[in-house]
Amino acid sequence: MAMKQLESKSALSEKEGIPQPESFSQSALEKIVTNRKHQPSAEDLITGILKGDKVALSRAITVVESTNPAHTSKVNDIIHACLPHANNSIRIGITGVPGVGKSTFIEAFGTYLTSIGKKVAVLTVDPSSTISHGSILGDKTRMEELVKDENAFIRPAASGETLGGVARKTRETIILCEAAGFDTIIIETVGVGQSETAVHSMVDFFLLLKISGAGDELQGIKRGIMEMADSIVINKADGDNVAKAKLAKTEFNRALHLFPAKSSGWIPQVTTCSAYEKTGIDTIWKIISDYFELVKANHYFDQKRQDQNQFWMLETINEQLKSNFYNNPEIVKLLEENKLAVASNKKSPFLAALELLSSYFK
Amino acid sequence: MAMKQLESKSALSEKEGIPQPESFSQSALEKIVTNRKHQPSAEDLITGILKGDKVALSRAITVVESTNPAHTSKVNDIIHACLPHANNSIRIGITGVPGVGKSTFIEAFGTYLTSIGKKVAVLTVDPSSTISHGSILGDKTRMEELVKDENAFIRPAASGETLGGVARKTRETIILCEAAGFDTIIIETVGVGQSETAVHSMVDFFLLLKISGAGDELQGIKRGIMEMADSIVINKADGDNVAKAKLAKTEFNRALHLFPAKSSGWIPQVTTCSAYEKTGIDTIWKIISDYFELVKANHYFDQKRQDQNQFWMLETINEQLKSNFYNNPEIVKLLEENKLAVASNKKSPFLAALELLSSYFK
Repeated sequence: MAMKQLESKSALSEKEGIPQPESFSQSALEKIVTNRKHQPSAEDLITGILKGDKVALSRAITVVESTNPAHTSKVNDIIHACLPHANNSIRIGITGVPGVGKSTFIEAFGTYLTSIGKKVAVLTVDPSSTISHGSILGDKTRMEELVKDENAFIRPAASGETLGGVARKTRETIILCEAAGFDTIIIETVGVGQSETAVHSMVDFFLLLKISGAGDELQGIKRGIMEMADSIVINKADGDNVAKAKLAKTEFNRALHLFPAKSSGWIPQVTTCSAYEKTGIDTIWKIISDYFELVKANHYFDQKRQDQNQFWMLETINEQLKSNFYNNPEIVKLLEENKLAVASNKKSPFLAALELLSSYFK
Repeated sequence: MAMKQLESKSALSEKEGIPQPESFSQSALEKIVTNRKHQPSAEDLITGILKGDKVALSRAITVVESTNPAHTSKVNDIIHACLPHANNSIRIGITGVPGVGKSTFIEAFGTYLTSIGKKVAVLTVDPSSTISHGSILGDKTRMEELVKDENAFIRPAASGETLGGVARKTRETIILCEAAGFDTIIIETVGVGQSETAVHSMVDFFLLLKISGAGDELQGIKRGIMEMADSIVINKADGDNVAKAKLAKTEFNRALHLFPAKSSGWIPQVTTCSAYEKTGIDTIWKIISDYFELVKANHYFDQKRQDQNQFWMLETINEQLKSNFYNNPEIVKLLEENKLAVASNKKSPFLAALELLSSYFK
């Protein structure tokens, strides 16, 4: 067979070749083309969101999460149109180290909220998902009941190269969810790096989930996290664990007294629950409701949201100023040299800084 | 008398006037001129410093502290010449709220150190002195013995407009003191604002001074400060206070166990002393000596100093990048508008940031 193909008259003549099998299915191509044609416009997405359409919401979030610069103006249009319909919500941050049962808790808490008429959106801030991409499926399968709930919307972790990038996307996703009518936004953080701080600066209420241990409850807690918490909930207070959980509650209450008073005027509350047995969830909701009653009455709620907006504006600016400087090719080179000179005491840190700055601004 | 002066021939003629008394003393003027002429050169100052001349050291610090841009190259010359002779010291930061007896402690500790052959420089970081200028005389008079000590050098707080400015001057003053042969640098912070953090990032060892209270020792401590401390010293352990101080020691020891291990490998030590009765000072010096033995052996000492140098370089750059941006006249105007738009949810924080950045970089 092969020899027949080589019956050519000249070394330069090209062989006719054999018919190649199609490397893609024609029907798949047609689907892609159709899909591209039907890529919804910003207006379509906005209309869908404002009607509470979860598919439109999902698609809009995908646009917001896109790193394609061509999407920037579309993102801005969507956000701009959603902003006047956003902000009518409560935003709850939930954190806790792996193993405390965050997903089970959110499943129990979320279904409780929808049962009392709330519309719940669950978002996750997970800077580590950039690398692993592993938590996406995990989250959804661990919230089996909530994912099927008509009044719930679960969006897995946005991925991004930096925590700043992830935070921006999550902040904008909150706006879209609120515009779509979700009145209770739950933002889960996986407790990696600085993600708790980022989440704390985008929520109204911060809940720290814990489990009881062997008496040394305070060991290994990142100090800053406890200081941020508006409530500490000790999960897995079931079976043999009930007594231990109560003891942990006493210990945390004592520890919380060591912290200075919060500017919200709120005194952080400690409680126990079993997400597995779905007990204690109503008490948690009572604590959260009390908090919002207080901070809406004393105007801390509005003030904090305004402060958060300004914080994110300034944070974005500061990050970008640094990014521009440290990614400047000339600075990259000079910085390495100066780092060495400074580390070995050949140059004072301030002189090195001045040299770098004058090179950048020249 | 007055009428005689008005015997003029024309309205336009000027009166001769009476001889005025001299408004300054001629001898004072001569002194000033002589002094200006003898303003020491960078070379004079460097020679003096390296000989250990305290007058030259003092004058050089004044140059370093100067905000006159004309002095910049002189400052750089002095620092550059001193750097190779610096760094052979231990740097100890001391903090504590007003009333714990910091000055009395430094007096007792400093004189102990000179008695065992050390050369001690005491510097103060006090961002509040910019406003009050009040602590300068206070410091010196409260350290009566040390100020007369040949082997001690006390320099009151550098004033500056920002903590960053104060920190830079203090860092450079450390270099000069070390080049002048001072082997033990004590940096006192008055516990205002972020000054403890700034001091922590320029010393090897951080000492928190406390007094015993009514059993609630942990109340009101800024959390971050306790976490930074390499040693907690309970002062005023004298007279009726001895038992209370011991109790406080136990409480602090228990509290310190809650913190994660330090990367230096050092376990923070709690001890008591009476700066007034000069008791317990030798134990403190033993603790500090043990620390330096450990961190010099495990190379944490060198690593930390290198990290601190790089930290200050990057910190200076980042502060200057922000300062350039936020002091840009166009940005000042735009920022106000955008702050309002963002606070009232008319614009997303990220869109506002992008607008400001593109205006700055255009």
